[in-house]
Amino acid sequence: MGSMNEIYLDNAATTPLDKNVFKEMKRYFESEYGNPSSFHKKGKDAKEAVENSRNIISKLLNCELNEVIFTSGGTESINFALKGVAFANRHKGNHIITSKIEHHAVLEVCKYLEKNGFEVTYLDVDKFGFVNPKDVENAITDKTILVSIIYANNEIGTIEPIKEISKITKKKKVYFHTDACQAAGFLNLDTTSLGVDLLTLNGSKISGPKGIGLLYIKEGTNIEPLIHGGGQEFKLRSGTENVPSIVGFAKALELAQKSKFSEGNRLTSIRDFLIKGLLKIPKTRLNGPINERLPNNVNISFLDIEGESILLHLNEKKISASTGSACASNNLESSHVLRAIGLPYEASHGSIRFSLGKKTTISEIKYLLKVMPGIVNTLRKISPLNLNEDYFK
Amino acid sequence: MGSMNEIYLDNAATTPLDKNVFKEMKRYFESEYGNPSSFHKKGKDAKEAVENSRNIISKLLNCELNEVIFTSGGTESINFALKGVAFANRHKGNHIITSKIEHHAVLEVCKYLEKNGFEVTYLDVDKFGFVNPKDVENAITDKTILVSIIYANNEIGTIEPIKEISKITKKKKVYFHTDACQAAGFLNLDTTSLGVDLLTLNGSKISGPKGIGLLYIKEGTNIEPLIHGGGQEFKLRSGTENVPSIVGFAKALELAQKSKFSEGNRLTSIRDFLIKGLLKIPKTRLNGPINERLPNNVNISFLDIEGESILLHLNEKKISASTGSACASNNLESSHVLRAIGLPYEASHGSIRFSLGKKTTISEIKYLLKVMPGIVNTLRKISPLNLNEDYFK
Repeated sequence: MGSMNEIYLDNAATTPLDKNVFKEMKRYFESEYGNPSSFHKKGKDAKEAVENSRNIISKLLNCELNEVIFTSGGTESINFALKGVAFANRHKGNHIITSKIEHHAVLEVCKYLEKNGFEVTYLDVDKFGFVNPKDVENAITDKTILVSIIYANNEIGTIEPIKEISKITKKKKVYFHTDACQAAGFLNLDTTSLGVDLLTLNGSKISGPKGIGLLYIKEGTNIEPLIHGGGQEFKLRSGTENVPSIVGFAKALELAQKSKFSEGNRLTSIRDFLIKGLLKIPKTRLNGPINERLPNNVNISFLDIEGESILLHLNEKKISASTGSACASNNLESSHVLRAIGLPYEASHGSIRFSLGKKTTISEIKYLLKVMPGIVNTLRKISPLNLNEDYFK
Repeated sequence: MGSMNEIYLDNAATTPLDKNVFKEMKRYFESEYGNPSSFHKKGKDAKEAVENSRNIISKLLNCELNEVIFTSGGTESINFALKGVAFANRHKGNHIITSKIEHHAVLEVCKYLEKNGFEVTYLDVDKFGFVNPKDVENAITDKTILVSIIYANNEIGTIEPIKEISKITKKKKVYFHTDACQAAGFLNLDTTSLGVDLLTLNGSKISGPKGIGLLYIKEGTNIEPLIHGGGQEFKLRSGTENVPSIVGFAKALELAQKSKFSEGNRLTSIRDFLIKGLLKIPKTRLNGPINERLPNNVNISFLDIEGESILLHLNEKKISASTGSACASNNLESSHVLRAIGLPYEASHGSIRFSLGKKTTISEIKYLLKVMPGIVNTLRKISPLNLNEDYFK
């Protein structure tokens, strides 16, 4: 291989901005600076850019224009969806259903809602991370107002049975939100075929800009705003529209959805090559399923060693990966997702997520597979642990 | 003048992005794309960019690093400040004091809080738009938890006596928030000398990017997050940090504060030249004060005609202005600010805000003054109204 450039395998944390996306954004930084609410030409041009972006996105989501509400990102969209539906439907009931493997944004909002009079059921998942639709059905009571299940898990890549769940929520007349941030590059986002009432997306996971996202809200959904003010976004999300980022987001989503099958196939084959290679190292385990898994997600536990130490050694080789979700990386707690699939504490601490992206090549992965056994050996030599290989099987 | 380029006099709605600000942002779009929460080098570089920006801003605000919380803009900051303090201090009292001339974000959040068990006092202002600090003092009861007064008004430029008000709120042990979005280009932002507990700023009013803002929160302030999740921003505002925009915001605020006196003096003289020229047109009136007025704000009522018609004629001359705040421009109601200073309905409908900016030149203003009397005459000829000049005096 010789000397390698940096190898970025943390695309689930954030993606490099696509050059073509940045190109689209530039004129809104350089010359088209208007406020879309202004009456004059600069304002109308900005408004047109926003509405053109909304039009592109509404086609990708197979929905109406006024069902696309731009926000500042995935976390805001999730807060908006969960708090907005919860507080607006309090008169109907105070029960919410979610899973134990949601993104921190969902779990922290649920904790907040619990402090404010709501009751939350956190569904178990199976050993691969799948939510069982029957468990959703069984958890629904006459107090249930909302179900929120992640479309594809950010740590272990499990793709949840969203369509099956939506059949149940429709039948039971309960709102259904899905966090589709990790799914957007590879999976179907047709909101009608998915059958969801609310869907969260953001820019930074699909080679788009940071600080932009959206909430799809099915017409007729009873929801209150999270951010009040000038009444932008159909009176559902106030604040001057972030024109350059909205334009970039639409372009990024268009590119991502256009290439979702080809890119998905390309990465699936690289992913499986990486998984196979890593599992040749003794005392390793794949977390998450083999099928119904995001094409870009690999999550492996290396017994007896610390994930952070592996990352440091990878860093020296200019390889960027992660121990779990970036949002929790400053946190010494073990991953709630790995705990939920039944991984013991020691094993979850030696887990690494490699998340592939547009720029990932097979030669990068070959290089990773070349250096990885040495790193693991080095760390195991100095490890105080020597657990049985069956420990996490 | 011959043929003019576009003349942008709507800088209070949004400002063109400064070329030097965009230059600083670029590398975070082009190569430094990391997520600040990631453990690897790309992540640490991004984290450093955010913390460097926070450091620049904390010096400008004369505050601690952990008192600067980045948000997606002014509207989010205002929602965070008001709802965050209100809900966190509900046990102490349910009374909030604000003024009748606040930005829509403050007024709409107050309406929301009223629906959720809070009581809000909307203080009157005098005919120039000044809040009387004594009125604040008299309105405070033992139920009062928060006062929110705009630093400088976005429609008529009135600079409020923030220091005088903060003496009272300190004495009475009530939290004090100020919306400083319009003030940031010209006024002192030293949070200690201002004596405020919370202060809102954003990027788009100071030649910085859209979609970025901050809330200054004095250490010890009891506040709850508006957006829950991964725990970024000292656990007060979750969501992946918008690195390019944070970097651009810090640069823009640095440039704005550095040139606030020189640019303030330059624009004050252009402003006064414009006011003098426009008041030569019969049946006109200046809204807002002559002194203690933002250097870039001119707000004039032209009797008997419609503001929107004036804007259309100005558009034809490639001049961009506004009838009031951009956030309300799709709204046919007359301005709540002009109503609050006692302007009759018909007069407020013929009001135009010219807001000057970094690029405004005296020759642009001379051109405006050359075309304005003709526009007004044309419109008055077709107007059904012919009110007495004393109507709004």
